[in-house]
Amino acid sequence: MKIYDITHTLNSSMPIYPGNPTFSIKKTSTIEDNGSNVSEITMGSHTGTHIDAPFHFLNDGKTIDELGIERFLGKCQVLDFTKSSDCVTDKDLKEKEINTEILLLKTKNSLVGFDKFHEDFIYLSEDGARYIKNLGVKFVGVDGLSVKKFHEKDFVHKFFLSSGILIAEGIDLEEVSEGEYFFVGLPLKIAGADASPARIILVEDKEK
Amino acid sequence: MKIYDITHTLNSSMPIYPGNPTFSIKKTSTIEDNGSNVSEITMGSHTGTHIDAPFHFLNDGKTIDELGIERFLGKCQVLDFTKSSDCVTDKDLKEKEINTEILLLKTKNSLVGFDKFHEDFIYLSEDGARYIKNLGVKFVGVDGLSVKKFHEKDFVHKFFLSSGILIAEGIDLEEVSEGEYFFVGLPLKIAGADASPARIILVEDKEK
Repeated sequence: MKIYDITHTLNSSMPIYPGNPTFSIKKTSTIEDNGSNVSEITMGSHTGTHIDAPFHFLNDGKTIDELGIERFLGKCQVLDFTKSSDCVTDKDLKEKEINTEILLLKTKNSLVGFDKFHEDFIYLSEDGARYIKNLGVKFVGVDGLSVKKFHEKDFVHKFFLSSGILIAEGIDLEEVSEGEYFFVGLPLKIAGADASPARIILVEDKEK
Repeated sequence: MKIYDITHTLNSSMPIYPGNPTFSIKKTSTIEDNGSNVSEITMGSHTGTHIDAPFHFLNDGKTIDELGIERFLGKCQVLDFTKSSDCVTDKDLKEKEINTEILLLKTKNSLVGFDKFHEDFIYLSEDGARYIKNLGVKFVGVDGLSVKKFHEKDFVHKFFLSSGILIAEGIDLEEVSEGEYFFVGLPLKIAGADASPARIILVEDKEK
């Protein structure tokens, strides 16, 4: 069983989507003073590798803790769009044979490192989002910190989240090739949250 | 595939181990003001259902992000000790046939609810910890907020963490019966952290 950890590490110098809360960790107890190390962590709900709940864009949508655990598991496909220079379009998607309900889009975002925020990150086009919805997909993962183009009016988030499609953002597909895997993407179970940082892994499908 | 989510929900009224940071969430953006809900989360590294890294008790021990992802997955046994009134001892453990490297100890802690901190929570005795280590176990999960007796000198944490045994605390086994499962317990990948809140699930073993 080969496992890929497609989660970026959370730390105080990681890139943060502009306007979002930053990440910090500080010790509140040390071994020297109290016998053990204990820390306090502060982070945005959309920090690093994370999963959006419908409540991110819909006030009557489910929060991250209200989503059934089954939503976070299943067969998935990693699709390679590393040749796309701007965005992933319906034309790009039509070139792939898609047969799973979870799609992870690998783009140049996974190849440029995760040390700073790139305003020109690769995003999913509106026609690409519509094509994905029509396939019956239930979960889309992207390797940029947002599924939609930076500084443009948002269409894709609300379109997906109101269609019952969950979104993972900030996944790290650098080491993962196009193909089928078993997806396990577990957010924290935070009451009332619009999203949560998550630990996301792919298990290589040995039955292929 | 039957999945049990053995994670307690994180919220601002949840019980916190005395002296540890509390949990809070606040909105930093709303749909009304900015088009989307975004939140900031503050929590202790040992809040709710969480996994301890060796660095919790060993300054030269691995931090949570340094542990290989394989450490968080594997066959496990849930052992029922709900009849134990004070702690789980080596005598209790010897009555069970143990054949996995991950053990989850179900006690009365899972039955009393998770609405307040109970100082008299059921813990693992020193002789119980020694017995577990000698079996070659690599991961122990308990349903109290600590593996060791409240207000007593700590032995078990350092003993386990220095022996290569990871510890999950605050798991919720109320709905889970004694038996074998596949364990997936994923902490956040937090650089330098002594522990992290985690999402932990059990997959029912259909091959039994």
